[in-house]
Amino acid sequence: MKRISLMFLTAGLLLASGSTLAQQAAADKAAAPAPVDRAKILTAPGVFGNFSTYKVRSDYYKLSSAERKGAAAEVMAVVEKHKTSVIVDAYLTRGFESQSDYFLRVHSYDMAATQAFLVDFRATRFGMYSDVTEQLVGMTKPLNYVTKDKSPGLNAGLTGATYQGSAPRYAFMIPVKKNAEWWNLSDAQRLKEIETHTIPTLGNLVDVKRKLYHSTGLDDTDFITYFETNDLGSFNNLMLALAKVPENKYHVRWGSPTVMGTIQTFENVVKALSGS
Amino acid sequence: MKRISLMFLTAGLLLASGSTLAQQAAADKAAAPAPVDRAKILTAPGVFGNFSTYKVRSDYYKLSSAERKGAAAEVMAVVEKHKTSVIVDAYLTRGFESQSDYFLRVHSYDMAATQAFLVDFRATRFGMYSDVTEQLVGMTKPLNYVTKDKSPGLNAGLTGATYQGSAPRYAFMIPVKKNAEWWNLSDAQRLKEIETHTIPTLGNLVDVKRKLYHSTGLDDTDFITYFETNDLGSFNNLMLALAKVPENKYHVRWGSPTVMGTIQTFENVVKALSGS
Amino acid sequence: MKRISLMFLTAGLLLASGSTLAQQAAADKAAAPAPVDRAKILTAPGVFGNFSTYKVRSDYYKLSSAERKGAAAEVMAVVEKHKTSVIVDAYLTRGFESQSDYFLRVHSYDMAATQAFLVDFRATRFGMYSDVTEQLVGMTKPLNYVTKDKSPGLNAGLTGATYQGSAPRYAFMIPVKKNAEWWNLSDAQRLKEIETHTIPTLGNLVDVKRKLYHSTGLDDTDFITYFETNDLGSFNNLMLALAKVPENKYHVRWGSPTVMGTIQTFENVVKALSGS
Amino acid sequence: MKRISLMFLTAGLLLASGSTLAQQAAADKAAAPAPVDRAKILTAPGVFGNFSTYKVRSDYYKLSSAERKGAAAEVMAVVEKHKTSVIVDAYLTRGFESQSDYFLRVHSYDMAATQAFLVDFRATRFGMYSDVTEQLVGMTKPLNYVTKDKSPGLNAGLTGATYQGSAPRYAFMIPVKKNAEWWNLSDAQRLKEIETHTIPTLGNLVDVKRKLYHSTGLDDTDFITYFETNDLGSFNNLMLALAKVPENKYHVRWGSPTVMGTIQTFENVVKALSGS
Amino acid sequence: MKRISLMFLTAGLLLASGSTLAQQAAADKAAAPAPVDRAKILTAPGVFGNFSTYKVRSDYYKLSSAERKGAAAEVMAVVEKHKTSVIVDAYLTRGFESQSDYFLRVHSYDMAATQAFLVDFRATRFGMYSDVTEQLVGMTKPLNYVTKDKSPGLNAGLTGATYQGSAPRYAFMIPVKKNAEWWNLSDAQRLKEIETHTIPTLGNLVDVKRKLYHSTGLDDTDFITYFETNDLGSFNNLMLALAKVPENKYHVRWGSPTVMGTIQTFENVVKALSGS
Repeated sequence: MKRISLMFLTAGLLLASGSTLAQQAAADKAAAPAPVDRAKILTAPGVFGNFSTYKVRSDYYKLSSAERKGAAAEVMAVVEKHKTSVIVDAYLTRGFESQSDYFLRVHSYDMAATQAFLVDFRATRFGMYSDVTEQLVGMTKPLNYVTKDKSPGLNAGLTGATYQGSAPRYAFMIPVKKNAEWWNLSDAQRLKEIETHTIPTLGNLVDVKRKLYHSTGLDDTDFITYFETNDLGSFNNLMLALAKVPENKYHVRWGSPTVMGTIQTFENVVKALSGS
Repeated sequence: MKRISLMFLTAGLLLASGSTLAQQAAADKAAAPAPVDRAKILTAPGVFGNFSTYKVRSDYYKLSSAERKGAAAEVMAVVEKHKTSVIVDAYLTRGFESQSDYFLRVHSYDMAATQAFLVDFRATRFGMYSDVTEQLVGMTKPLNYVTKDKSPGLNAGLTGATYQGSAPRYAFMIPVKKNAEWWNLSDAQRLKEIETHTIPTLGNLVDVKRKLYHSTGLDDTDFITYFETNDLGSFNNLMLALAKVPENKYHVRWGSPTVMGTIQTFENVVKALSGS
Repeated sequence: MKRISLMFLTAGLLLASGSTLAQQAAADKAAAPAPVDRAKILTAPGVFGNFSTYKVRSDYYKLSSAERKGAAAEVMAVVEKHKTSVIVDAYLTRGFESQSDYFLRVHSYDMAATQAFLVDFRATRFGMYSDVTEQLVGMTKPLNYVTKDKSPGLNAGLTGATYQGSAPRYAFMIPVKKNAEWWNLSDAQRLKEIETHTIPTLGNLVDVKRKLYHSTGLDDTDFITYFETNDLGSFNNLMLALAKVPENKYHVRWGSPTVMGTIQTFENVVKALSGS
Repeated sequence: MKRISLMFLTAGLLLASGSTLAQQAAADKAAAPAPVDRAKILTAPGVFGNFSTYKVRSDYYKLSSAERKGAAAEVMAVVEKHKTSVIVDAYLTRGFESQSDYFLRVHSYDMAATQAFLVDFRATRFGMYSDVTEQLVGMTKPLNYVTKDKSPGLNAGLTGATYQGSAPRYAFMIPVKKNAEWWNLSDAQRLKEIETHTIPTLGNLVDVKRKLYHSTGLDDTDFITYFETNDLGSFNNLMLALAKVPENKYHVRWGSPTVMGTIQTFENVVKALSGS
Repeated sequence: MKRISLMFLTAGLLLASGSTLAQQAAADKAAAPAPVDRAKILTAPGVFGNFSTYKVRSDYYKLSSAERKGAAAEVMAVVEKHKTSVIVDAYLTRGFESQSDYFLRVHSYDMAATQAFLVDFRATRFGMYSDVTEQLVGMTKPLNYVTKDKSPGLNAGLTGATYQGSAPRYAFMIPVKKNAEWWNLSDAQRLKEIETHTIPTLGNLVDVKRKLYHSTGLDDTDFITYFETNDLGSFNNLMLALAKVPENKYHVRWGSPTVMGTIQTFENVVKALSGS
């Protein structure tokens, strides 16, 4: 009996869980109460991207069905609470990954606001029964190599390509780390390698969306590459093309983990993993 | 008393467990209600293969014998539910592997349908008490190197070879990842290496069945190689022959894990691990 | 009922927990009862720096809310008890790291006093429910390479640079280990590499504070580098600059883990993780 | 009260635990009901050797003393049941290894019979409270390099050497994996290296017994080397001699783990770890 | 209530825990009932050294304070029981290491006697709640390289140096493994490297005590190096000197883990970790 009642006590945490960080973020929100503009934050430079993978602990399934049924609403309330400072995307990885059941992508203009959201999320019942298994932190920047100035032809190819597939159902998060030899190349040499890397991938841009985050020094990788697609065969071909260029010889990490998930609403991810 | 009753509650999850993904898959099935054609899906290109290894948690054996006895039927009901979108093969690895007690091979034409099945499987009692320890995702493709056009003699040898052993009792799942030097070889160079790799293995095709899945970018390996045999000595000789060709110098992963299991019905795998 | 009461018993540990080491340290304190001078210990050579990362165990959240509410006060009492021998800084890493929820930096003039503090901290309820996930030990030393004598120009640049940013909200702890080739270079060669390393980073000193600890033989790394900043983009650029110098080729460990946290009071860290 | 009674239920598992594999093996035994001939199986080629290491879970020691006292008899009943298809050797590693408390070596002429035994063993109370931490699978083969034909002098030395020490009390299990360069040497080159490897070890054969298992493709190693000795200093010298020949440069795995145990009856191993 | 009583039952294990190995060792002791001579065993060659690191499980702190208070006496009774065959040193690592709270160094003339002691120790309540996290096994040998014959000058330097510091409070255990290139050097080449290694360390012998154990083939390292000091800065300088000689280029393992502890009585180690 006590066990159940303790559970209800912990469920109450959410209401009181505002960390000082969250309060600070809340103060910021008072000045800017509009929800984050999704289209804008997903294209702007200087935005922080936070990727975290989670595994639901087995004892979650020992909670009563009723308790698990309420999990999604509690999570969505946290998302609502932070909607003026962060946007959250969720992906179901169960069945594709051994180290996770789902992963989250959180964007914000202030990394502390991201932390405030994730601290609150972890204080929900679903968050409490989730173990974080990977955590990557990056930021967006303006194009570095294939710019209008340095590589006008390829830049036109890149910016001209438009995704033409059906709504993507799959997303991939793949960290990339390069060795000291790469970073000790001259800018011109790295530009050349990136051009060689870009050319064979242009054809896939109609089937695969890409987004890049920089993370040197913020975590143990240099880049977080994120992809959406509905055509896994085309995605496999894209990755093979990237394997076949010299740049690949400079990788010390490419994947490890490669995280594949289906694109879903956060609510559905929680429900699919709650058996409700 | 409550503990037992909670268990019965969780057992009831299965009936309500249809994720949105599963529902979508179910909708697809309405249009194609026939069970998946096993012979066809096992030979077609463009098919998704999903390999997952599992370890039964020790607390499973603290359930009553009656509860464990019902586990196989519950699992088979999930297989039945998804029979129009996936086929499932099961293998007992206990006694051969430290990281798993069994593994599953799931085929489908739609990766989301595979996920829907695995999400439902994990919601059964047996699935709930199983920890996923490895998860690999790949797809079948037409022959790449030793084709009729590029290598007619070897192609004839490959397609002419027929398995002649008794019904195979053992299966192996072995991931393969190649380094950047391999992928930066020209197509002609890679063809030559694959020919050198193929020649010494032709003699083993009477004793060992093989199947190849491509997974670059879908997970942290390039290929998943799958074998069935009844002659472990012949299989050991085949793998030694593959170790002795130059292609082996390009491997960064070959195994890790090598997963060996006995080929069994899914029902028998569950029963063998449930002590019933 | 008993479970709760056991908890209260363990909570009482703190009062009796003085290890012999702590008693010895306490005796030392009798002779020097003044609190550690923060400004002095943070700039002196010959000081011991101890970094430890922690993950709160999931069963902490099964304690009653009341029990968790008292956690911060209990921790602060231990800090107070040891204030004449150690100073403690705390950082919240939840949301940034998968292997930790917070980390501590402890400074002292006597490593045994640091151990006495950490043994007492681990005997608090919050400490008991925390798993140590990384532990690094180092000491401060006078400047080694870019000294007034050996590299007067750069030394002036280094000592002349002052942090001009707003109060830093973020801290990073990054271990560094160099290979045998590095250590087998002559002193003059290493000085040259360190000069090359220093030049491109001078510009970032207005945005990023740095502190260095030496740990060869004391743990499995050579250096612990510690940073504070409020400008994550500038910090990312600093780390890229360090990646682009030849010294980077001698690294066998740089990060692994890179630990990022927000700078907070110890009290607030405990509260944020206690849901109170 | 229930907890204890569940335990007795699980203890009953053994009686009903015959997997289909075991039943098949049992059927084979009907045709050949004599126990396995130990002297013969330990010298024949084509025999399967299975090595598994185990760690006793801490909750085993929360069972009552009476329950633990019965563990050895239950294990020995399983050994008796399978005595016509497998032989089992047991070794106590507690105090020598961090990853195991004991290890088993199982020999059979049919790998499925080995699996049937191990599945039944894991269904005993002692097996249930044991976690498998390493599992290696190999087979014996006729001499490969130093044969009468290829290397007559060394072959005579090898076959003429006889163990002359007192009854060995210690056993070692050491996996060996060689790199692609080794396997791409010609047969003549590998013979030369093995001769160079054999010469300095002949002197130790009076103190150390050796046995070799081949496992390429069956698990993630190429060989399992097994040793028995009563003279640890002589064994250390033997391993140093093997480190000092060029063959060592081709090792990618030699140990990891090196497993050392005392040679004991299976019954005594269970008793030593059961505190009875 | 039962939980507590089970605990008392397990506490009773010690009285009955004599393994057959322990009994054998006890028989040996009948012939040689004098306690092991500490000064002699610490300087003799042919002695077995056994290093094990332990982490106290979190559930230990859920025992009542009374139960934990009795832990030290129970441990000391085991030490007393084995005092004629082993000597035991204990070190507190909590606060310095993430993988351990304490470590033990056990010396004996018979490795089986060491195992008998450690099996009995693990059957105490404190031992039961301790997880072994590293285990290394070695033996002492006469000087190998810098002997009177081969290197008379350095030998005089080594044997003439005497520790002159205050009683050391810190100990380090650092494993060392060398690569195949090292072992394939000629004896003369290795002697030269060891001489180069010895010269710059002579000055530190007044501040740091050293002891060497050989473990090739006994575990996954070649040497266990053990140090005692009261001057951590001097120890750091010693390790830097060792990093700067060519021998360092042959290391494949040096540390991993480096284990640092304070030198304490076994009783105090148990008490410090028991909160009493």
